[in-house]
Amino acid sequence: MVDTINVRSEKTHTASSASQGTITPHTRPSNCLPSFVRSIMSSVVEISDEPGQPPALSALSLAQTSKDSKAKEQVITPFDVSGGVDEQGKPVAIDYDKLIDRFGSQRIDKAILARFERLTGKPPHRLLRRGMVFSHRDLNLVLDKYEKGVPFFLYTGRGPSSNSMHVGHTIPFEFTKYLQDAFDVPLVIMLTDDEKFLHSPKLSLQECRRFALENALDIIAVGFDVKKTFIFADTEFIYSDHGAAFGFNILEMAKKTTNNQIKGTFGFNDTNNIGEFAFPAIQSATSFASSFPFIFGHNTKAVNKIPCLIPCAIDQDPYFRQCRDNAPRLGLMKPALIHTVFLPSLRGSESKMSASDTDSSIFLNDTDNQIKKKVGKAFSGGQDTREEHERLGGRTAVDVPFQYLTFFLEDDERLEHIRQQYESGKMQSGEMKATAIKELQAYVAAFRERRKAVTPEIREEFMRPRQLIFKSMPLVEEQVTAIQERRRMVLRELTLLDEGLARLLANGEAS
Amino acid sequence: MVDTINVRSEKTHTASSASQGTITPHTRPSNCLPSFVRSIMSSVVEISDEPGQPPALSALSLAQTSKDSKAKEQVITPFDVSGGVDEQGKPVAIDYDKLIDRFGSQRIDKAILARFERLTGKPPHRLLRRGMVFSHRDLNLVLDKYEKGVPFFLYTGRGPSSNSMHVGHTIPFEFTKYLQDAFDVPLVIMLTDDEKFLHSPKLSLQECRRFALENALDIIAVGFDVKKTFIFADTEFIYSDHGAAFGFNILEMAKKTTNNQIKGTFGFNDTNNIGEFAFPAIQSATSFASSFPFIFGHNTKAVNKIPCLIPCAIDQDPYFRQCRDNAPRLGLMKPALIHTVFLPSLRGSESKMSASDTDSSIFLNDTDNQIKKKVGKAFSGGQDTREEHERLGGRTAVDVPFQYLTFFLEDDERLEHIRQQYESGKMQSGEMKATAIKELQAYVAAFRERRKAVTPEIREEFMRPRQLIFKSMPLVEEQVTAIQERRRMVLRELTLLDEGLARLLANGEAS
Repeated sequence: MVDTINVRSEKTHTASSASQGTITPHTRPSNCLPSFVRSIMSSVVEISDEPGQPPALSALSLAQTSKDSKAKEQVITPFDVSGGVDEQGKPVAIDYDKLIDRFGSQRIDKAILARFERLTGKPPHRLLRRGMVFSHRDLNLVLDKYEKGVPFFLYTGRGPSSNSMHVGHTIPFEFTKYLQDAFDVPLVIMLTDDEKFLHSPKLSLQECRRFALENALDIIAVGFDVKKTFIFADTEFIYSDHGAAFGFNILEMAKKTTNNQIKGTFGFNDTNNIGEFAFPAIQSATSFASSFPFIFGHNTKAVNKIPCLIPCAIDQDPYFRQCRDNAPRLGLMKPALIHTVFLPSLRGSESKMSASDTDSSIFLNDTDNQIKKKVGKAFSGGQDTREEHERLGGRTAVDVPFQYLTFFLEDDERLEHIRQQYESGKMQSGEMKATAIKELQAYVAAFRERRKAVTPEIREEFMRPRQLIFKSMPLVEEQVTAIQERRRMVLRELTLLDEGLARLLANGEAS
Repeated sequence: MVDTINVRSEKTHTASSASQGTITPHTRPSNCLPSFVRSIMSSVVEISDEPGQPPALSALSLAQTSKDSKAKEQVITPFDVSGGVDEQGKPVAIDYDKLIDRFGSQRIDKAILARFERLTGKPPHRLLRRGMVFSHRDLNLVLDKYEKGVPFFLYTGRGPSSNSMHVGHTIPFEFTKYLQDAFDVPLVIMLTDDEKFLHSPKLSLQECRRFALENALDIIAVGFDVKKTFIFADTEFIYSDHGAAFGFNILEMAKKTTNNQIKGTFGFNDTNNIGEFAFPAIQSATSFASSFPFIFGHNTKAVNKIPCLIPCAIDQDPYFRQCRDNAPRLGLMKPALIHTVFLPSLRGSESKMSASDTDSSIFLNDTDNQIKKKVGKAFSGGQDTREEHERLGGRTAVDVPFQYLTFFLEDDERLEHIRQQYESGKMQSGEMKATAIKELQAYVAAFRERRKAVTPEIREEFMRPRQLIFKSMPLVEEQVTAIQERRRMVLRELTLLDEGLARLLANGEAS
């Protein structure tokens, strides 16, 4: 079904693909990152701003104070991702360095890469090696505990705003899968169909619920281990017998969160609806292991000691800043975070990825031919003529096909070789595009194969509240007790249903 | 249990007992009401105000504009019920006439009383006859449809802020029971434990949930018919397999409600928490029959035509004004309302009923002796000396024992006789108090007897989502289909639980 319906509305939750302003050679290098990544994190505009101040408000105050300048600060919120505009009105790339400073998160540095290698016995994931996973909060605390034998759990999600996902959406999920495999930890994936419904004037609840189920199939196809993964859609899980502990955490978080906090964090105003204001409590509550007693057990005191690590695209950070502010007031642990960058738009660094513009991104259900056509038209960093290209070299910093290779090509040496060949003018744009096409076709083909194998039955199992299997899971005795308790409730309902049915049929016959 | 614990915190939901300012003889008569009721609806202060403007904001603007005057407008919201203060700083009674004008509701007039008598074949309930049920919205529309054979359902509720209820709380419930009996209609009773938790800095979620269960026992003891009544606590029902349709209506209503609307209706500001802002969508969603498919059936189009009538204390009106504003935008019917006044405080018209002051009200678990002592100390409208009393007569308008008789004494002739005797000075205060004591003791004793019979098992049945029995209930075929559908789901879960248990025990033995 997903292959034939192509409502490609793009506002996404954890994996927004970003529009980017002009990426220029005036890079501000991040010390710890390989050279070819620095270009992604480049910036021209140097407008001072208060670190930690929410992006929406910064952008607003900037617009108010600089009427003459065309400069516009970049906006990175869960609801809007757009690069800034410089004083001449020229779009500029998202400045991830500046985001780190403003959000007050920490850089992923060499020490952390080394630590990953030591803990997992393998080189860090390519997204880590290449700086696409670039920032974190309290990651070291989680790893400290992990080294001492205290387990953690992973939490990520998606806002199901359409029935099809693109390759950019898989970035945080792929990284999450790596973490799950590397650390053998349980994972919860939240589909925020309620959020998408509340924030989208045109989407019905039924549509968002359907998108959630469709997206779950794609997410499962990333390759998650069903024994270690629980996927839920908010509107299915909350209003169910298994959603009570989650619901109570939502209420506790809502009570601690003022309207003022939400306005400060998200830049909402009083024309926003009350559901939008209340939703952050729901996204927060997933950060607490006690929301999932069927996974972590019913000993709340012990369960509250299990830390949470959230891999997500950086635009989701405001939700969890909000959560981290309030968690200690509930006696709960702040979730740790690890942030990914956005996959650039096909149209190049200066264009915005558009919600309904199928040519701006590569979808997971695109055919080989569609991929070929799209990448063929992608923004190139090659020079205008063959001669000029050979003389000046290609600009990898703005070359969209090359940027895609940094995300999807596993082989570091080959990538570095391609970079050198292109920058030295030995490799032409056509060859760069052909390489990227091949790589993306292979990536999507592999996904397509995995996706074919995902049946509704498999999804049902992923989405069923149940005991996950992982180190430090609850003891067998506790699990047995919990199942027997639930079994008693289910049997009681069954008896009452049967009695009701018998009464009804007897009366029906009598009448 | 309820008899031994006496945390008598008073902020209630549908049945707040109100503090009243001085009730004076300067009455403004309501044309349609018996003379002894006019005093309840009396007023001195005549401060102009905008009809329809929310009470909290009116009070605020008044305070801002009249710094020299001591006058304070009465405040009637779900969170604050207090009579006004006149320009000399003297408390004045709640002016129900003014409330009708400001809230923009309609008066219960003689025509409506006659209609009740015609439809039910009996004299209207004493609370209707005597003007304690004094105001409504769209009641005639509901009765029009009822006469044409279109059924309606009743909805009322309580905010469980303590584990004990007082006699004032039973007023709307008793009236609701009358309506249920008279019209043979289904009733849903909502216990807003979530609301109380969100609004009470000191109450834990666990406490509010416990209060809800305790209060349910008292409410059942009012005498509701279990076959026609579904009682639910929000935190139990929402997070359950049967709460989905309700949850979806909550989301739909939340999406249509802006922060601005909530501020306008309730006078909240940005230091209120996001749960408080979001809660009105929950109280609204109960107004729609489609929230309860297990009662009204699964044919949403037909179910959406079933009107809702909400009997409640007038302080709850803001919630439903809000709901009525937004319902048409969802293609849903506005609920109709019928409003009761508040039972005056024992301490007399000038004192406020206090949350922790057990002497300010009569609790449903008070002993005969406690009632005797409390009413003995109640504010009297008698004169200072016997001689003066015989000369001037007692003032029924401010005499608390007499006011209680108007609420609880069924016999109209006897009540009128008592009024005449007292006002003419033939009956002394002591005799008036003794009469009220006897009447209240009888009322509470009858309640006590019914309350003894209410077991947790009976409560469980009232609180179980199930088919209620009433005229125009879903057809047997539809009921059978719904039960069988649910039965399949329950059986599926049972199978999975059993498989899990078997696997677990096998592994347990193996290890």
